[in-house]
Formats: sequence, C-alpha cells, structure tokens
Amino acid sequence: MTQPSAISRPRFDVVAIGNAIVDVMAAASDDDIVALGLAKGGMTLVDEPRAHELYQAMGPAREISGGSAANTLAGLAALGASCGFIGQVAGDQLGEVFAHDIRAGGIAFDTPVRAGEPSTARCLIFVTPDGQRTMNTFLGASQFLPADALDDAVIADAAVLYLEGYLWDPEEPRRAMRRAIATARAAGRKVAFTLSDAFVIARHGDDFRALIEAGAIDILFANEHELAALTGKDDFHEGIAALGPKIATLVVTRSEKGAHAVSGGEHAMVAAAPVGHVVDTTGAGDLFAAGFLFGHVRGLALETCLGLGAICAAEVISHYGARPEADLTALVAPLLS
Amino acid sequence: MTQPSAISRPRFDVVAIGNAIVDVMAAASDDDIVALGLAKGGMTLVDEPRAHELYQAMGPAREISGGSAANTLAGLAALGASCGFIGQVAGDQLGEVFAHDIRAGGIAFDTPVRAGEPSTARCLIFVTPDGQRTMNTFLGASQFLPADALDDAVIADAAVLYLEGYLWDPEEPRRAMRRAIATARAAGRKVAFTLSDAFVIARHGDDFRALIEAGAIDILFANEHELAALTGKDDFHEGIAALGPKIATLVVTRSEKGAHAVSGGEHAMVAAAPVGHVVDTTGAGDLFAAGFLFGHVRGLALETCLGLGAICAAEVISHYGARPEADLTALVAPLLS
Repeated sequence: MTQPSAISRPRFDVVAIGNAIVDVMAAASDDDIVALGLAKGGMTLVDEPRAHELYQAMGPAREISGGSAANTLAGLAALGASCGFIGQVAGDQLGEVFAHDIRAGGIAFDTPVRAGEPSTARCLIFVTPDGQRTMNTFLGASQFLPADALDDAVIADAAVLYLEGYLWDPEEPRRAMRRAIATARAAGRKVAFTLSDAFVIARHGDDFRALIEAGAIDILFANEHELAALTGKDDFHEGIAALGPKIATLVVTRSEKGAHAVSGGEHAMVAAAPVGHVVDTTGAGDLFAAGFLFGHVRGLALETCLGLGAICAAEVISHYGARPEADLTALVAPLLS
Repeated sequence: MTQPSAISRPRFDVVAIGNAIVDVMAAASDDDIVALGLAKGGMTLVDEPRAHELYQAMGPAREISGGSAANTLAGLAALGASCGFIGQVAGDQLGEVFAHDIRAGGIAFDTPVRAGEPSTARCLIFVTPDGQRTMNTFLGASQFLPADALDDAVIADAAVLYLEGYLWDPEEPRRAMRRAIATARAAGRKVAFTLSDAFVIARHGDDFRALIEAGAIDILFANEHELAALTGKDDFHEGIAALGPKIATLVVTRSEKGAHAVSGGEHAMVAAAPVGHVVDTTGAGDLFAAGFLFGHVRGLALETCLGLGAICAAEVISHYGARPEADLTALVAPLLS
C-alpha cells in the first residue's frame, strides 16, 4: 500500500457516487398531483408497476439525464472542474442515454453496465405550473451498484468524494459508499454528502449522525427540512447552531430565501439569484452544490462559494431539466474576476 | 363492400402515416456542423454505425418524441382535433417513449410493435445558436411499416389522410401509403401530403408528379425549396403558378417570410407570427401543417387556415422539441372568435 503524498495534486476535483437516472418530465396540474395521490414537491420511491401506472397517467414527456449527484457533476464539469462519476446503469437504451450524456459533459464514467433486469433507473417528474417538481423514482439498476464496481484508485485521486443521500437507502450502494468513504479518508481526501430528502433521514438518520460524530463528513449539504429532520430542531437557527460545530463545512439551502453556510465558526449567507421565470425547480439543490463545490475546490471564500451555488441553481430552474443549459462559466465570471 | 355515405361524419379528423421517431437533440456550434461533415439545415438519412458515431460526437442531449407527421398530429390533437397515427416502433424503450407520448397527446395509435432489430428510429438533431436544426435520421424500425399494419377501416373513417414524404423513401411504407391513398379515395376522403425534403423529391419526384396529375392528392404542403425541386421553377411565383392549378389546395411555407396558399384559384398569404427568441426550428413545418389542417377540417377560410399554421409554427420554434408545449387552443383563440 502506498500512502499518497499530502501534496499530490489529485487527478479529479470531485468524484461522485450517485443514482444513474434518466428523468422523464411532463407538465401536470395541481389536480393531477392530487388525483394521482402524489406528495407534491417530494421524492417518492416507486416499484416498476407503480412507475408504469404513473407513466400511463403522465402527459407527453421529455427524457433528460438526471440523478442528483450526476447533476451536480454536470454543473461542476460545465464550470471547468475535473470530475468522475460512479453509478449503475443497465444495458438498455436509457442506460446508453445516461452514459452518453454524462460522458458528453466531459465526466469520466467507467462503472460497468449491469446485464439483465431491472432496467435503468427512471424518475417520473410531474412539473406543476408553479415550477415545483414532484418526483417518483424507480431505482431499477441503480440500487444494485456493487462495492466491487468502485475503483479505489479513482476515489483516492479526487480532492472531494461526493455522495448522494438518496443512494444510502438501498443496501448494496450503501455498502459501496461506506467503502468509498474509508478509501477517501485513508487517502487524505475530503468527503462531501448531500442529505437528499427528509425520508432518507427518517430511515437512516442514525447512520448519518454517527458518520458526522465520527468526523467522516467534511462538507454537508442540506435544505431546511433536512436540517430539521437531522437535528430535531424545527427552528432554522437552532438547527444551524446544533449541527454547525460538528461539520467542517455545513451548507443549508433555503429555496427562495437563499442559503447559509458555516465553516470553522465563520458564517456566510447569500440571497437567491434572480430568475425571470421559474420553469422547473428540478435540480436546484444539485446545481447549488455544484457551484459551491467548485468554489470550494478552488479555495475561494465561503461567501463566494455560496454565490456560485446561487447562480448555478438559478440557471437550472429557468428551464426544464436538471442539467445546465446555459454557459455556466460565463454566468459565474463576475464572481470570479 | 359498403360504400360510406357521403354525409357520414368521420370518426377522425386526420389519420396520418409517418415515421415513429424519437428526437435526440443537443446544442452544437457551427464549427461542430462543419467538423462532423453535416449538411446544415437539412435532413440526412444515416445508418446505425453513423448514428452511433454522431451520437458519440454530440453534447449532452434530451430525448423528445418527434417524427414529422406525428408532430403534426400532436399539434392537431392539442387544438382539439380527433387524430390517429400509423407508424412502426420496435419493442424497446424508445418505442415505449414514442408510443406513450403520442397516446398521452390523445392520439389513437394501434400499429403493432415490431419485434427484433432494428431498434426504434432516432433523429439526431444538432441545434445551432441561430435556432437552425440539422437532422440525421436513423430510420430503424420505422422503415419496415408493412402495408398489412394499416387498418383500412380507420383510414376510411378519417376526413383527411395525411402522409409524410420522408416515409415515401423506404419501400415497405411506400407500398403501405399507396394502399392508404386508394383506401381513402375509395371512401371519399381527402389525401394530404407533405413533401418533407428536397432529397425525397430528387429520388421520388416522378412518383409525386404522377400522383398529382392523377388527382390523388388534395392538399399538398411544401416549402420553397421543395416547390422549386418539384416544379423545376427556381422562381417562387412561377412555381406557384405551375403547381397551383393541379392541386385542390397548395400550401407553401417560406420560413420567416410567412406562407402562401392557393385553393380553387384563390390565393392567400400570411406573415410569420412573431417569436421572441427562436430557440429551435425543429418542427416548424410540421406545426404549420397542424394549424392549417385544423382550420381546413373545420371549414375555415383559407387565410384563417394560414394564420393558424403561423401561430402553431411560432410556438414550436420558441422552445426545444418539435411538439407543442404551450396551450395551442388559447394561442389560436383570437383567430377563431
């Protein structure tokens, strides 16, 4: 075993482990959400029959690659970061679409395709006129990411390992992520984690709190609801006060109220960046994380990191789909000059 | 054989035969178009290896159901017309996507899935910053639509049979379309045809001229280039003068110059409807045909039909994808009141 030198410049800025999902997005009315028994604004895991049922009920749709951590990498890569993705697709057309889109974004992706059933993960997303998205995820092949699909050398060669909380739920990827955390820490790298959804905390909060107490997570992303779920504090400031001292860098997003970060006792805040018309909020948190992490790996000030996050989030909610369309580098240039 | 009564109200306003294609769309630069050896603004048929090669070279993409005649039906159905589609998909995920989207638009679609290779048709579309689209079509299963997949009763029960010129190129669908024309005419229905592309006319112009001379086509859609290719007249007005008297209704679209129609010696013109920002011209001609045909089956004035076409075309070029996203009924309401 060779111990990497502390000053080795890693090959990757960020390597992420996440769901390899294609989003299937359609406009829907609030009445549709009620009629279909959906939890508006949330993410619900569905099995294949329910996915088929919902797809039947869905209007004409478009397919755009998604997956929370993969979206974050798409943003990071668009900003110029060097990235790698680890996630499981099946050997089907949607798997090809996912792999194409992530590689076409300049992201290394070498996880072997998984043969046979189930098919590649899909997220059926109903977008209401207020821009809110209601997600129904069929995890498919994604939930079978095996620990032995991880390339330890890749993980050890990334400044930041970024993990998606959604993927903590299924057993195989959870085991893979635990191994990845150990690999990254042994190599002296940072571990970033996004809590993803309150339901994940309801099921695995004890795991997350244990990881935090053990100092295994350097950067934690949460939204207000997730912060409350993890800390048991309904008051936002109490939540920040309870969790902040336990994490090197804590980032809490608050939708239209902007975002708040705490790092080494320093607090910073940013307002939400202006958006002409909110079309589809899918990916807002993912792209906020992209902007923040880009600033972080470049060693920028905490407030600048937040500002980068806000700009990237604003871009992605101005159109359908959770991957950036505009030139992010141009959009963030004013913050970097 | 029962002869339908001349006054029977048909079940469908329009039944169309066309390619069952999923569009794969990505932004591209003019340099990309040159480097890939593409014919900007045109449609090129590609085989599977070339489709793979182009897909590899393509940026992150989105998948949206397309196909020229299917796009026209999507517009017609959104306007409130009763429609049926006939086209061939394979038993794969993109085939499911196509079938879902057309049915979710309220369009009857009962063509049996074709087992085995090739896969469902794809059109790789490079969209340049000027909104122009450059299309590369892998016809896949689409080119194997067999004549026996047609339901004659459905064709006989539609006020208009609408045929896509692109599908005249492969042999099996051409045979199917010839049979459909005979079925529609025997039932006293109208036949509408879109010339689709100058390359189709280069290969099958004699067929089209023979059909026109035989009086088998009641409504013909062409753009300026196709009009010139079909008539051999480079001058637009000479082309109209040559072809107009041979067709009950001739509609010629002229991009930003609007459109011109001739019917029974009456001429009408319309300017292009205003568009804030042209994002993607894919589907402009298809949606023009949708608006026009909607007016036609409702028995509206020639100028109104053109106006409906212009509004529908303007909607579809304001966003990515060749299917309408906005509420077309609301957009055209001022013309119908």
